[in-house]
Amino acid sequence: MEEMKVVFHIVAMKKWDLVLANVSNLLEDAQDTDLKVEVIANSAAVKYYDTIQDIVVDLNTLMQLNEKGVRFVACNNALNANNIEKHNLLDFVSVVPAGVSEIVRKQHQGYAYIRP
Amino acid sequence: MEEMKVVFHIVAMKKWDLVLANVSNLLEDAQDTDLKVEVIANSAAVKYYDTIQDIVVDLNTLMQLNEKGVRFVACNNALNANNIEKHNLLDFVSVVPAGVSEIVRKQHQGYAYIRP
Amino acid sequence: MEEMKVVFHIVAMKKWDLVLANVSNLLEDAQDTDLKVEVIANSAAVKYYDTIQDIVVDLNTLMQLNEKGVRFVACNNALNANNIEKHNLLDFVSVVPAGVSEIVRKQHQGYAYIRP
Repeated sequence: MEEMKVVFHIVAMKKWDLVLANVSNLLEDAQDTDLKVEVIANSAAVKYYDTIQDIVVDLNTLMQLNEKGVRFVACNNALNANNIEKHNLLDFVSVVPAGVSEIVRKQHQGYAYIRP
Repeated sequence: MEEMKVVFHIVAMKKWDLVLANVSNLLEDAQDTDLKVEVIANSAAVKYYDTIQDIVVDLNTLMQLNEKGVRFVACNNALNANNIEKHNLLDFVSVVPAGVSEIVRKQHQGYAYIRP
Repeated sequence: MEEMKVVFHIVAMKKWDLVLANVSNLLEDAQDTDLKVEVIANSAAVKYYDTIQDIVVDLNTLMQLNEKGVRFVACNNALNANNIEKHNLLDFVSVVPAGVSEIVRKQHQGYAYIRP
Protein backbone atom coordinates (compact mmCIF):
# COMPACT_ATOMS: atom_id res chain seq x y z
CA MET A 1 0.00 0.00 0.00
CA GLU A 2 1.29 3.46 -0.93
CA GLU A 3 2.51 5.46 2.06
CA MET A 4 1.89 9.21 2.27
CA LYS A 5 3.14 11.38 5.13
CA VAL A 6 2.72 15.13 5.40
CA VAL A 7 2.92 18.03 7.82
CA PHE A 8 0.74 21.07 7.22
CA HIS A 9 2.26 24.24 8.69
CA ILE A 10 -0.05 27.05 9.74
CA VAL A 11 1.09 30.43 11.00
CA ALA A 12 -1.96 32.74 10.79
CA MET A 13 -5.54 32.41 12.08
CA LYS A 14 -7.07 33.35 8.72
CA LYS A 15 -5.51 30.25 7.11
CA TRP A 16 -7.41 27.66 9.17
CA ASP A 17 -10.33 27.32 6.74
CA LEU A 18 -7.92 26.61 3.91
CA VAL A 19 -5.79 24.19 5.93
CA LEU A 20 -8.80 22.16 7.11
CA ALA A 21 -10.24 22.07 3.56
CA ASN A 22 -6.84 20.91 2.28
CA VAL A 23 -6.68 18.16 4.90
CA SER A 24 -10.25 17.02 4.13
CA ASN A 25 -9.49 16.91 0.40
CA LEU A 26 -6.35 14.90 1.07
CA LEU A 27 -8.19 12.35 3.23
CA GLU A 28 -10.84 12.00 0.52
CA ASP A 29 -8.30 11.61 -2.29
CA ALA A 30 -5.89 9.31 -0.45
CA GLN A 31 -8.35 6.72 0.89
CA ASP A 32 -6.39 3.77 -0.48
CA THR A 33 -3.08 4.85 0.98
CA ASP A 34 -1.36 4.55 4.34
CA LEU A 35 -1.72 8.23 5.22
CA LYS A 36 -0.19 10.13 8.14
CA VAL A 37 -1.17 13.78 8.56
CA GLU A 38 0.02 16.27 11.15
CA VAL A 39 -1.12 19.88 11.41
CA ILE A 40 1.45 22.05 13.20
CA ALA A 41 0.41 25.51 14.36
CA ASN A 42 2.80 28.15 15.62
CA SER A 43 2.78 31.95 15.91
CA ALA A 44 -0.75 33.43 16.15
CA ALA A 45 -2.35 30.32 14.62
CA VAL A 46 -2.23 28.48 17.97
CA LYS A 47 -5.11 30.65 19.24
CA TYR A 48 -7.43 28.43 17.22
CA TYR A 49 -6.87 25.59 19.71
CA ASP A 50 -7.95 27.71 22.67
CA THR A 51 -11.35 26.43 23.78
CA ILE A 52 -12.22 29.89 25.05
CA GLN A 53 -12.33 30.95 21.41
CA ASP A 54 -15.34 28.72 20.80
CA ILE A 55 -16.94 31.16 18.41
CA VAL A 56 -14.04 30.88 16.02
CA VAL A 57 -13.24 27.20 16.23
CA ASP A 58 -15.24 24.74 14.18
CA LEU A 59 -14.93 22.01 16.78
CA ASN A 60 -16.89 19.42 14.79
CA THR A 61 -14.54 19.61 11.83
CA LEU A 62 -11.46 19.36 14.03
CA MET A 63 -12.83 16.43 16.04
CA GLN A 64 -13.89 14.53 12.92
CA LEU A 65 -10.47 14.98 11.35
CA ASN A 66 -8.81 13.93 14.59
CA GLU A 67 -10.98 10.78 14.72
CA LYS A 68 -9.77 9.99 11.20
CA GLY A 69 -6.19 10.08 12.47
CA VAL A 70 -5.11 13.67 11.88
CA ARG A 71 -2.76 14.85 14.64
CA PHE A 72 -3.08 18.48 15.74
CA VAL A 73 0.01 20.08 17.29
CA ALA A 74 0.66 23.40 19.06
CA CYS A 75 4.01 25.12 19.56
CA ASN A 76 4.63 25.86 23.26
CA ASN A 77 6.63 29.01 22.50
CA ALA A 78 3.63 30.35 20.60
CA LEU A 79 1.24 29.40 23.43
CA ASN A 80 3.37 31.39 25.87
CA ALA A 81 3.66 34.36 23.52
CA ASN A 82 -0.14 34.41 23.22
CA ASN A 83 -0.77 33.86 26.97
CA ILE A 84 -2.68 30.64 26.37
CA GLU A 85 -2.83 28.16 29.25
CA LYS A 86 -2.34 24.52 28.24
CA HIS A 87 -5.39 23.42 30.20
CA ASN A 88 -7.54 25.62 27.94
CA LEU A 89 -6.49 23.71 24.82
CA LEU A 90 -8.77 21.27 23.04
CA ASP A 91 -8.24 17.80 24.53
CA PHE A 92 -6.71 16.16 21.48
CA VAL A 93 -4.11 18.86 20.80
CA SER A 94 -0.48 17.82 21.39
CA VAL A 95 2.00 20.42 22.64
CA VAL A 96 5.63 20.42 21.46
CA PRO A 97 8.40 22.66 22.88
CA ALA A 98 9.08 24.33 19.48
CA GLY A 99 6.95 23.99 16.37
CA VAL A 100 9.92 24.54 14.07
CA SER A 101 11.86 21.62 15.60
CA GLU A 102 8.84 19.37 15.12
CA ILE A 103 8.59 20.43 11.46
CA VAL A 104 12.29 19.73 10.85
CA ARG A 105 12.17 16.35 12.56
CA LYS A 106 9.08 15.24 10.64
CA GLN A 107 10.70 16.15 7.32
CA HIS A 108 13.84 14.25 8.36
CA GLN A 109 11.51 11.26 8.95
CA GLY A 110 10.28 11.51 5.36
CA TYR A 111 7.21 13.68 5.80
CA ALA A 112 6.36 16.10 2.97
CA TYR A 113 5.76 19.75 3.91
CA ILE A 114 2.84 21.91 2.84
CA ARG A 115 2.39 25.54 3.78
CA PRO A 116 -1.13 26.53 2.56
CA MET B 1 24.66 15.88 -14.86
CA GLU B 2 23.19 17.35 -11.67
CA GLU B 3 19.49 16.63 -11.23
CA MET B 4 17.15 19.26 -9.76
CA LYS B 5 13.46 18.66 -9.16
CA VAL B 6 11.03 21.12 -7.59
CA VAL B 7 7.36 21.86 -7.12
CA PHE B 8 6.26 25.46 -6.71
CA HIS B 9 3.04 25.76 -4.71
CA ILE B 10 0.77 28.73 -5.34
CA VAL B 11 -2.38 29.50 -3.38
CA ALA B 12 -3.26 33.15 -4.16
CA MET B 13 -3.70 35.03 -7.45
CA LYS B 14 -1.44 37.88 -6.34
CA LYS B 15 1.52 35.48 -6.11
CA TRP B 16 1.64 34.56 -9.82
CA ASP B 17 4.11 37.29 -10.83
CA LEU B 18 6.51 36.16 -8.13
CA VAL B 19 6.13 32.46 -8.94
CA LEU B 20 6.73 32.99 -12.68
CA ALA B 21 9.75 35.22 -11.98
CA ASN B 22 11.10 32.53 -9.61
CA VAL B 23 10.65 29.83 -12.24
CA SER B 24 12.33 31.96 -14.93
CA ASN B 25 15.28 32.69 -12.64
CA LEU B 26 15.61 28.99 -11.85
CA LEU B 27 15.61 28.01 -15.55
CA GLU B 28 18.26 30.64 -16.22
CA ASP B 29 20.45 29.61 -13.29
CA ALA B 30 20.10 25.84 -13.76
CA GLN B 31 20.84 25.56 -17.47
CA ASP B 32 23.47 22.88 -17.01
CA THR B 33 21.32 20.65 -14.88
CA ASP B 34 18.65 18.03 -15.51
CA LEU B 35 15.79 20.21 -14.23
CA LYS B 36 12.18 19.22 -13.59
CA VAL B 37 9.76 21.98 -12.55
CA GLU B 38 6.10 21.68 -11.69
CA VAL B 39 3.85 24.59 -10.69
CA ILE B 40 0.85 23.42 -8.64
CA ALA B 41 -2.03 25.84 -8.10
CA ASN B 42 -4.86 25.27 -5.68
CA SER B 43 -7.37 27.47 -3.82
CA ALA B 44 -8.06 30.81 -5.60
CA ALA B 45 -4.81 30.62 -7.60
CA VAL B 46 -6.38 28.23 -10.14
CA LYS B 47 -8.37 31.15 -11.60
CA TYR B 48 -5.21 32.19 -13.39
CA TYR B 49 -5.54 29.18 -15.72
CA ASP B 50 -9.04 30.18 -16.81
CA THR B 51 -8.78 31.47 -20.40
CA ILE B 52 -11.75 33.73 -19.78
CA GLN B 53 -9.50 35.74 -17.50
CA ASP B 54 -7.30 36.75 -20.46
CA ILE B 55 -6.71 40.21 -19.11
CA VAL B 56 -5.00 38.85 -16.07
CA VAL B 57 -3.03 35.98 -17.56
CA ASP B 58 0.29 36.65 -19.22
CA LEU B 59 -0.19 33.86 -21.74
CA ASN B 60 3.15 34.40 -23.49
CA THR B 61 5.14 33.88 -20.31
CA LEU B 62 3.21 30.74 -19.40
CA MET B 63 3.50 29.23 -22.89
CA GLN B 64 7.22 29.96 -23.10
CA LEU B 65 7.84 28.35 -19.72
CA ASN B 66 5.71 25.37 -20.73
CA GLU B 67 7.71 24.97 -23.96
CA LYS B 68 10.85 24.89 -21.82
CA GLY B 69 9.40 21.93 -19.91
CA VAL B 70 7.62 23.52 -16.96
CA ARG B 71 4.46 21.59 -16.07
CA PHE B 72 1.46 23.60 -14.91
CA VAL B 73 -1.06 21.81 -12.71
CA ALA B 74 -4.51 22.72 -11.37
CA CYS B 75 -6.33 21.17 -8.39
CA ASN B 76 -9.75 19.87 -9.40
CA ASN B 77 -11.27 20.60 -5.99
CA ALA B 78 -10.22 24.23 -6.41
CA LEU B 79 -11.64 24.37 -9.96
CA ASN B 80 -14.99 23.16 -8.64
CA ALA B 81 -14.94 25.58 -5.71
CA ASN B 82 -14.32 28.44 -8.14
CA ASN B 83 -16.91 27.23 -10.73
CA ILE B 84 -14.30 26.87 -13.45
CA GLU B 85 -15.09 24.44 -16.29
CA LYS B 86 -12.16 22.27 -17.37
CA HIS B 87 -12.72 23.09 -21.06
CA ASN B 88 -12.01 26.76 -20.25
CA LEU B 89 -8.51 25.98 -19.00
CA LEU B 90 -5.39 26.77 -20.97
CA ASP B 91 -4.56 23.77 -23.18
CA PHE B 92 -1.33 22.78 -21.50
CA VAL B 93 -2.66 22.78 -17.92
CA SER B 94 -2.91 19.35 -16.26
CA VAL B 95 -5.72 18.70 -13.79
CA VAL B 96 -5.19 16.52 -10.71
CA PRO B 97 -7.95 15.38 -8.32
CA ALA B 98 -6.33 17.09 -5.30
CA GLY B 99 -3.42 19.53 -5.41
CA VAL B 100 -2.26 18.54 -1.93
CA SER B 101 -1.93 14.86 -2.90
CA GLU B 102 0.13 15.84 -5.94
CA ILE B 103 2.42 17.95 -3.74
CA VAL B 104 2.92 15.11 -1.25
CA ARG B 105 3.60 12.53 -3.98
CA LYS B 106 6.12 14.76 -5.75
CA GLN B 107 8.04 15.33 -2.51
CA HIS B 108 8.01 11.58 -1.86
CA GLN B 109 9.58 11.24 -5.35
CA GLY B 110 12.43 13.55 -4.30
CA TYR B 111 11.10 16.89 -5.46
CA ALA B 112 11.98 19.96 -3.40
CA TYR B 113 9.12 22.25 -2.33
CA ILE B 114 9.02 26.02 -2.66
CA ARG B 115 6.12 28.20 -1.50
CA PRO B 116 6.89 31.72 -2.82
CA MET C 1 24.28 13.05 17.90
CA GLU C 2 21.03 13.86 16.12
CA GLU C 3 21.52 15.92 12.97
CA MET C 4 19.05 18.67 12.03
CA LYS C 5 19.33 20.73 8.85
CA VAL C 6 16.88 23.39 7.71
CA VAL C 7 16.45 26.30 5.33
CA PHE C 8 14.10 29.11 6.29
CA HIS C 9 12.67 30.88 3.23
CA ILE C 10 11.66 34.51 3.55
CA VAL C 11 9.98 36.53 0.81
CA ALA C 12 8.52 39.63 2.52
CA MET C 13 10.05 42.25 4.84
CA LYS C 14 7.22 41.96 7.36
CA LYS C 15 8.16 38.31 8.02
CA TRP C 16 11.64 38.99 9.45
CA ASP C 17 10.52 39.23 13.09
CA LEU C 18 8.79 35.87 12.82
CA VAL C 19 11.70 34.20 11.00
CA LEU C 20 14.28 35.41 13.53
CA ALA C 21 12.07 34.35 16.45
CA ASN C 22 11.63 30.92 14.80
CA VAL C 23 15.39 30.56 14.36
CA SER C 24 16.07 31.59 17.98
CA ASN C 25 13.50 29.11 19.25
CA LEU C 26 15.04 26.36 17.15
CA LEU C 27 18.57 27.08 18.44
CA GLU C 28 17.24 27.02 22.01
CA ASP C 29 15.30 23.78 21.51
CA ALA C 30 17.96 21.93 19.52
CA GLN C 31 20.99 22.56 21.73
CA ASP C 32 21.93 18.88 21.89
CA THR C 33 21.82 18.33 18.15
CA ASP C 34 24.18 18.89 15.24
CA LEU C 35 22.18 21.79 13.79
CA LYS C 36 22.66 23.56 10.45
CA VAL C 37 20.45 26.57 9.74
CA GLU C 38 20.33 28.72 6.63
CA VAL C 39 18.05 31.72 6.12
CA ILE C 40 17.44 32.43 2.42
CA ALA C 41 15.88 35.75 1.45
CA ASN C 42 14.61 36.57 -2.00
CA SER C 43 12.10 39.03 -3.48
CA ALA C 44 11.60 42.16 -1.33
CA ALA C 45 12.93 40.44 1.80
CA VAL C 46 16.56 41.04 0.72
CA LYS C 47 16.18 44.73 1.60
CA TYR C 48 16.64 43.73 5.23
CA TYR C 49 20.32 42.99 4.55
CA ASP C 50 20.97 46.48 3.20
CA THR C 51 23.02 48.34 5.81
CA ILE C 52 21.51 51.63 4.67
CA GLN C 53 18.25 50.40 6.17
CA ASP C 54 19.75 50.53 9.66
CA ILE C 55 16.54 51.71 11.25
CA VAL C 56 14.76 48.55 10.18
CA VAL C 57 17.45 45.96 10.77
CA ASP C 58 18.00 44.58 14.24
CA LEU C 59 21.72 44.11 13.69
CA ASN C 60 22.41 42.66 17.14
CA THR C 61 19.98 39.81 16.67
CA LEU C 62 21.35 38.97 13.23
CA MET C 63 24.98 39.09 14.36
CA GLN C 64 24.31 36.94 17.42
CA LEU C 65 22.53 34.33 15.31
CA ASN C 66 25.34 34.42 12.78
CA GLU C 67 27.92 33.90 15.53
CA LYS C 68 25.93 30.85 16.60
CA GLY C 69 26.35 29.42 13.10
CA VAL C 70 23.25 30.60 11.25
CA ARG C 71 24.05 31.37 7.62
CA PHE C 72 22.26 34.33 6.03
CA VAL C 73 21.84 34.27 2.25
CA ALA C 74 20.62 36.81 -0.31
CA CYS C 75 19.38 36.11 -3.85
CA ASN C 76 21.33 38.14 -6.41
CA ASN C 77 18.33 38.44 -8.76
CA ALA C 78 16.40 40.04 -5.90
CA LEU C 79 19.28 42.39 -5.05
CA ASN C 80 19.32 43.60 -8.66
CA ALA C 81 15.55 43.97 -8.79
CA ASN C 82 15.71 46.13 -5.64
CA ASN C 83 18.76 48.16 -6.79
CA ILE C 84 20.86 47.05 -3.84
CA GLU C 85 24.63 47.16 -4.26
CA LYS C 86 26.47 44.15 -2.87
CA HIS C 87 28.97 46.34 -1.00
CA ASN C 88 26.07 47.76 1.03
CA LEU C 89 25.15 44.34 2.41
CA LEU C 90 25.91 43.29 5.96
CA ASP C 91 29.37 41.67 6.04
CA PHE C 92 28.27 38.17 6.91
CA VAL C 93 25.58 37.87 4.23
CA SER C 94 26.34 35.38 1.42
CA VAL C 95 25.08 36.12 -2.09
CA VAL C 96 23.88 33.33 -4.39
CA PRO C 97 22.94 33.77 -8.07
CA ALA C 98 19.35 32.57 -7.55
CA GLY C 99 17.67 31.99 -4.19
CA VAL C 100 15.38 29.33 -5.62
CA SER C 101 18.30 27.22 -6.87
CA GLU C 102 19.90 27.41 -3.43
CA ILE C 103 16.64 26.27 -1.81
CA VAL C 104 16.31 23.32 -4.20
CA ARG C 105 19.95 22.26 -3.74
CA LYS C 106 19.74 22.42 0.05
CA GLN C 107 16.62 20.24 0.07
CA HIS C 108 18.35 17.77 -2.25
CA GLN C 109 21.16 17.68 0.37
CA GLY C 110 18.63 16.67 3.02
CA TYR C 111 17.70 20.04 4.48
CA ALA C 112 14.13 20.52 5.68
CA TYR C 113 12.22 23.56 4.40
CA ILE C 114 10.26 26.04 6.48
CA ARG C 115 8.34 29.00 5.09
CA PRO C 116 7.17 31.03 8.13
